[in-house]
Amino acid sequence: MLQESFLYQEIHEQPAVLAGLIEHELDHIQRIAAELRRRHLTHTLIAARGTSDNAGRYAQYLFGAVNHMPVGLATPSLHSIYRRPPQFEDALVIGISQSGRSPDIVSVVADGKRQGVATLAITNSPASPLGQAADYVIPLHAGEERAVAATKTYTSQLMTLALLSACVAEDQDMLNVLRQIPDRMSEVLQLSETVARAAERYRYMKVCVVIGRGFNYATAFELALKIKELTYVLAEPYSSADFLHGPVALVEEAFPTIVVAPTGVMQEELVKFIQTLKKRGAEVVAISDAAEVLELARVPLKLPVTVPEWASPLLSIVAGQLLAMHLANARDYDVDRPRGLRKVTETH
Amino acid sequence: MLQESFLYQEIHEQPAVLAGLIEHELDHIQRIAAELRRRHLTHTLIAARGTSDNAGRYAQYLFGAVNHMPVGLATPSLHSIYRRPPQFEDALVIGISQSGRSPDIVSVVADGKRQGVATLAITNSPASPLGQAADYVIPLHAGEERAVAATKTYTSQLMTLALLSACVAEDQDMLNVLRQIPDRMSEVLQLSETVARAAERYRYMKVCVVIGRGFNYATAFELALKIKELTYVLAEPYSSADFLHGPVALVEEAFPTIVVAPTGVMQEELVKFIQTLKKRGAEVVAISDAAEVLELARVPLKLPVTVPEWASPLLSIVAGQLLAMHLANARDYDVDRPRGLRKVTETH
Repeated sequence: MLQESFLYQEIHEQPAVLAGLIEHELDHIQRIAAELRRRHLTHTLIAARGTSDNAGRYAQYLFGAVNHMPVGLATPSLHSIYRRPPQFEDALVIGISQSGRSPDIVSVVADGKRQGVATLAITNSPASPLGQAADYVIPLHAGEERAVAATKTYTSQLMTLALLSACVAEDQDMLNVLRQIPDRMSEVLQLSETVARAAERYRYMKVCVVIGRGFNYATAFELALKIKELTYVLAEPYSSADFLHGPVALVEEAFPTIVVAPTGVMQEELVKFIQTLKKRGAEVVAISDAAEVLELARVPLKLPVTVPEWASPLLSIVAGQLLAMHLANARDYDVDRPRGLRKVTETH
Repeated sequence: MLQESFLYQEIHEQPAVLAGLIEHELDHIQRIAAELRRRHLTHTLIAARGTSDNAGRYAQYLFGAVNHMPVGLATPSLHSIYRRPPQFEDALVIGISQSGRSPDIVSVVADGKRQGVATLAITNSPASPLGQAADYVIPLHAGEERAVAATKTYTSQLMTLALLSACVAEDQDMLNVLRQIPDRMSEVLQLSETVARAAERYRYMKVCVVIGRGFNYATAFELALKIKELTYVLAEPYSSADFLHGPVALVEEAFPTIVVAPTGVMQEELVKFIQTLKKRGAEVVAISDAAEVLELARVPLKLPVTVPEWASPLLSIVAGQLLAMHLANARDYDVDRPRGLRKVTETH
């Protein structure tokens, strides 16, 4: 049964999807990057919802660190409901959507185009309203996603954004790292059985928090969303810093805390954070390749590969997807048809 | 006991604090606004954590709708930990912090100043590192805040941002609305007994979601934070649109949903949202002045006054503060000293 779910299949398709995306789109993305480099851009705004919004969070850190570009997340209702769009002078406006059909997201990109600024759509459906509204369209080449919970479209969105960042920076080292991601991801998928055993422990978990910071802030949001969609557990994502500004009051004995902390500059910060939480009795699940992190966790989920921190969100979320899927299985839920959800959500 | 808590006192001080803020700072804010109008600004970035970050969310909508200014929330770790700050060309960088002492927030404003862009600090402590790092400093005049959970500093941050928006737009009508807010807020405080009775019902609530959209997206975040800090209930904030893109799967019979939906353009959207949630069996608590919203709620918390939607977050959060406080009282928690929190949180 497990092996036959669309969700299982799509999680395991990801290495092939990403390899295909690089093969089909790298030249195209190079051309878009060359045109963007010639424009005077002071900032980027990203319009997206749900999983796609989490990909936008990754771009905030990646474009900031690599391209020195401030990235904000758009406020779609100013366009679609209040009809008071901000003035996007010198901005790059990016819409990200699997289906390309949510009217609020389309309205942000359409306002950008109307104002004459650079607009880019990243979508699995280039013929969609979003694709038609933008100057540039990068198709995700993810194939049809049949499970309601998005997996392969998320990692292909991350890959698209990373390819774009690398091409704008003309950074061949980054591109070489990205070309190796599909193989590294296949190694991470080997974790499935380990994760399945770990998930049993959380059969009756009611709530949890998911912590990441910096590049993996996005991973915390996306993993929390998968847990909510697939297991109906209220999983709230936080950066370690924001969590300490108030929500840490939630932590009591055995409070389940999932920490995403692969090797990198942020590692030291998250080690300190885990130590703080453990003093308060929290139970920590760690997704990491770093021994220093894993040995602090009650349940360590060891990533079998180490990549530069900026690329780690492409791998750490795969361990997270496996965790959410196996947790849903442990709870006997239908992973392909979560209650109350449809594949395409159109909001205004 | 209840009447004697610092939290109770500070919630009730808010009308006087806001009146004092307008009296002491309006001329100063007019001068800052005049200087900002002369600069070429394409976007604003706001660095803040916790409650102050929620004030930043309000500015995203207010500056966008009123001043046509795109506003993004900064990524402090790019400054403080990764040391890869984005290039803030043509930006206004605003740091918001009650204490002005969190190093990560100071680092964003300091990088802005180093880059020569306009920087503004909004803080209760103008002599703080944040105050010293910025070109312009607006003091909150809130007096010492002794309860750990921020209340009067939040509404004074909202007021400061609204005064700045109105002064940049040279909008006398907005200023007139703001001058009336202290009196309107006193009327909202009359709700306290009603809210205390309503809170009893949620004595054993384990989780909830708090929904707002547009101008009151910030209110949803701030109310959820107060509930977490004061009652240790995992309260997750969402825009109605984001909630439908996945997390709606959480909703089962009796799932508690607090909806902030005062009169305005967003009202129709939130009425539809409440109807959707009720079909799934959710229990709805509504904070609103609009009969159309209140009559859909299992527990209506009626705001006794109607103001323009853009100003409503200054009032709707006061009902929310009362709700969080009375919920903590119903659970017999110490509202002035939530477990595990200190007044000043310094994160890197």
